[in-house]
Amino acid sequence: MTTPHGEVETPVFMPVGTVATVKAVPQDVLDELGVQILLNNTYHLYLRPGVEQVRKLGGVQRFMAWDKPILTDSGGFQVFSLSELRKVTEEGVAFKSHLDGSAHFFSPEKSLEAEIGLGADIIMAFDECTEYPAERDRAQESMEMTARWAKRSKDYFEGYKRQTPWFERKSVEKGSEQTQALFGIVQGGMYADLRRESAQRTVEIGFDGYAIGGLSVGEPREKTWDMVEATIPLLPNDKPRYVMGVGAPEEIVQYASMGVDMMDCVLPTRAARHGLLFTSEGKLNIKNARYALDEGPLDPNCRCNVCARYSRAYLRHLYAAKEVLAQVLNTVHNLAYYLDTMRRVRQAIKVGELASFRSAV
Amino acid sequence: MTTPHGEVETPVFMPVGTVATVKAVPQDVLDELGVQILLNNTYHLYLRPGVEQVRKLGGVQRFMAWDKPILTDSGGFQVFSLSELRKVTEEGVAFKSHLDGSAHFFSPEKSLEAEIGLGADIIMAFDECTEYPAERDRAQESMEMTARWAKRSKDYFEGYKRQTPWFERKSVEKGSEQTQALFGIVQGGMYADLRRESAQRTVEIGFDGYAIGGLSVGEPREKTWDMVEATIPLLPNDKPRYVMGVGAPEEIVQYASMGVDMMDCVLPTRAARHGLLFTSEGKLNIKNARYALDEGPLDPNCRCNVCARYSRAYLRHLYAAKEVLAQVLNTVHNLAYYLDTMRRVRQAIKVGELASFRSAV
Repeated sequence: MTTPHGEVETPVFMPVGTVATVKAVPQDVLDELGVQILLNNTYHLYLRPGVEQVRKLGGVQRFMAWDKPILTDSGGFQVFSLSELRKVTEEGVAFKSHLDGSAHFFSPEKSLEAEIGLGADIIMAFDECTEYPAERDRAQESMEMTARWAKRSKDYFEGYKRQTPWFERKSVEKGSEQTQALFGIVQGGMYADLRRESAQRTVEIGFDGYAIGGLSVGEPREKTWDMVEATIPLLPNDKPRYVMGVGAPEEIVQYASMGVDMMDCVLPTRAARHGLLFTSEGKLNIKNARYALDEGPLDPNCRCNVCARYSRAYLRHLYAAKEVLAQVLNTVHNLAYYLDTMRRVRQAIKVGELASFRSAV
Repeated sequence: MTTPHGEVETPVFMPVGTVATVKAVPQDVLDELGVQILLNNTYHLYLRPGVEQVRKLGGVQRFMAWDKPILTDSGGFQVFSLSELRKVTEEGVAFKSHLDGSAHFFSPEKSLEAEIGLGADIIMAFDECTEYPAERDRAQESMEMTARWAKRSKDYFEGYKRQTPWFERKSVEKGSEQTQALFGIVQGGMYADLRRESAQRTVEIGFDGYAIGGLSVGEPREKTWDMVEATIPLLPNDKPRYVMGVGAPEEIVQYASMGVDMMDCVLPTRAARHGLLFTSEGKLNIKNARYALDEGPLDPNCRCNVCARYSRAYLRHLYAAKEVLAQVLNTVHNLAYYLDTMRRVRQAIKVGELASFRSAV
């Protein structure tokens, strides 16, 4: 996948850099870990430090000193999950900031305006993330509004491009004619036929890539598989296909084997901050007293700098003492584990052995 | 200065690694910054994870995966500054943990036992840090008790060495005949003659190095200078001389020019976590709104990785958003600034230009 900030080898896992930082991890460590592309949250950056400030500072890449690609979401998911007192109308979503209660309004046009201002390589259409559970009627209405919002997102973006010569566009890559890529989002709740209809309508509008949203919202895992399986075949395979907000390590392998090119998830970073670590031997809770005198590494099969240097006993101590370094080191390890998993998926695909790799995970 | 874990080039600044971590900074970054020796707090390690645990894990160096020298303080200062309901007698200090209120007792023997168990390269005699202000009588009594405690510390350490063949000692450097070094501490409040008496009595007992304690406890800076100036000439110049708990960047240059070999201070690390940054252009408060759109580095004359990569605007954003990365990056810069200052002091001493360097700081 080609972006203004370089090539991304897929399938790829995108760490979540909420407010222009992957919590607790410096950018040079992300480089060392082999991170190819980061996700940033439009909602968070819009509230703080604000789109205009990031734009003035040359866009989000330059702002956070990260010269590889960045994808921004539309803000839709955070508006639905974090903000209070939201009111959804055909026009868009009125909401109050989770930080200070101030009133804001996102519409497809407002969200796109923000994403253009932030200047990431890949930007997302504004969608409504359907809650779970949702009755069929509700899921259908929501999916249909997402389809209309997708059209408005595309129209706004095309209008912006028509009215703004490339050399005046707010894209960060100064002097590059390549524009931001706009992805559409498929919704439809947990109804396979609605998912298929949503995919069809989104593809008809035409985007640079396609995402499957509204998953991992509380449904049983099998439903998630079913929805991805129902949707993927309807998305063009010459465009990137992105499943949003998933998942556990074994799941990202599963999705990759279903043809998914891109995934993001807060799980490795958020779990790390709670002392939950992913290893080749399963999940490990570093709080556990059994590690108090354990001189072994977190994961004997991991080649990350944390496993090379520190013992479980030390990491447990840092966590118990609520030391910031616990967050740093735990996050580095979990990201290393995810990125290494995805690296091995890519290798397995290259040598045609993904099926056997998948069953071994 | 030779230690079981290698040579330390003096004058040296020791970052404070409170509870076996320099808050927010991974050990590989400390390596990159050129940290030669770390201070660890016996009080904190004694409470959590406990001396016996660190000893079983091979000593504090191995525990925290830091293969360069470590110095542990005696716990005296933290008992006086952090703990509640302390009761000082000739025997020692009864105190309650600041963590859970549990009751503990430190004496010269108990403190040395803990420091031997932790196994750092340099350990400190147990002293009483005289409060400021203190009447002359009080300062004298306190200094005299410190002298008696110094003797008991030395006796305990010598007894331990006599009774324990070197190959069974708890020193971390397994297979090394070189033992831990024990430093004595000069007290005496803000009375030059008491300081001189304390120095004389401490030197009479005989230690591997000498520290000046009880400074930076609230007194005006000139008094600190006066006390160091009164004491230094009485300490043997073929042994390391260590001023504890100082100071601002211009002060550490000053102390170095007075013949001080070692210093430690929480200032660079603690200030960093509060957004206060030391630069060649003076102190900088990253919270300040004037930096919101400032694309420049923290310090244009600094060659640390933080200044090479990130803008003031980004660092301000991280701080305002209470992001952990703010603590990491700010601490790295402040430590780089301190270590670079001390590196330049050593260079200036080598070429015989410390006086002119000092007046330029």
